[in-house]
Amino acid sequence: MKYYQREGLLPAGERTAPNQVAYSGEHVQRVRLIRALLETGGLSIAAAKDVISALDASDAPLSETFEVAQHAMSTPRTKESEPSESARARVAAIVVSRGWAFSADNPGIDAAARALDGLSAIGFDAPDAYLEAYASAAASAAAADLRALSERTSRDAIAELMVVGTVLGDPLFAGLRRVAHEDATHEMFATQSPK
Amino acid sequence: MKYYQREGLLPAGERTAPNQVAYSGEHVQRVRLIRALLETGGLSIAAAKDVISALDASDAPLSETFEVAQHAMSTPRTKESEPSESARARVAAIVVSRGWAFSADNPGIDAAARALDGLSAIGFDAPDAYLEAYASAAASAAAADLRALSERTSRDAIAELMVVGTVLGDPLFAGLRRVAHEDATHEMFATQSPK
Repeated sequence: MKYYQREGLLPAGERTAPNQVAYSGEHVQRVRLIRALLETGGLSIAAAKDVISALDASDAPLSETFEVAQHAMSTPRTKESEPSESARARVAAIVVSRGWAFSADNPGIDAAARALDGLSAIGFDAPDAYLEAYASAAASAAAADLRALSERTSRDAIAELMVVGTVLGDPLFAGLRRVAHEDATHEMFATQSPK
Repeated sequence: MKYYQREGLLPAGERTAPNQVAYSGEHVQRVRLIRALLETGGLSIAAAKDVISALDASDAPLSETFEVAQHAMSTPRTKESEPSESARARVAAIVVSRGWAFSADNPGIDAAARALDGLSAIGFDAPDAYLEAYASAAASAAAADLRALSERTSRDAIAELMVVGTVLGDPLFAGLRRVAHEDATHEMFATQSPK
């Protein structure tokens, strides 16, 4: 809690006596949110700060809050190389073929293109069917995210889920994919000769 | 390159003259792989080392290489809190309902449970339909991963794609989900009053 306050992520509690500080329920809730962004979402302190201020700017249009969330997860911790033009073009092509509306600076394009470059580095040039399976998985998850948003009524509740859902949907998927991998490869290993 | 060598990720090149070092094509390939793991996959140096040594232990059974890859992405950069028992139980329930075979220490269970805890922190208790959409997306991606593996023939090529695909499938999905989000929310923002 002290650490979050030093980093400017959390306001100080209310001093009620010389060595007593009172924290409201809202405070406790905020600590949980910060922990989720930093630990589970893996955001940097700077990115978490951006996200928190976007949440607190409750008069800002939702589309602005959304953009902050989109970019928060994409702020590289280390300096990242530019993806190759060919990988960017492949991602754009798959996205266009699905009829998705997107802006040129959507950080997802570069993130996906960098992953394709990494796969190419080991000689795996992802075939269309592979990319399409991932794009279709991403579309299903995004649709579930949108349904969840549409069930919230207040502007603040929508903004909060928009930000936190963007950040935490990634590890949710990654965790489930890990489990699905174990199931999928089970048969593959079963046919290997024992060692 | 020097940095990777200092960190023990890459062997030194062959000294061909007092101030000349020769690098093989394999070396260059390896640098690309390391960069993909660290920058795009976001692995720590220690996790990348584990992955590289698993790749180089070419007499190890594939199931061992697979386990290293599974755990590499799950090595937390910061100390992570244990997920709640209720979140773990929900993830296990959804996975069991799909009939997936998995071991109790599959790191994906905790990763997904932590994400659920983070969502609960902002009052979003993910409904079953939400979790099922994510599980189904993870299953489709894992199936595409397995098809790609089955098209490789040598043990080393399979091991390499297993490791790198496990690590880079996450940012590939995350990037595409970002683009799908922009498309999905387009309509939502269009109905907001202009600001």
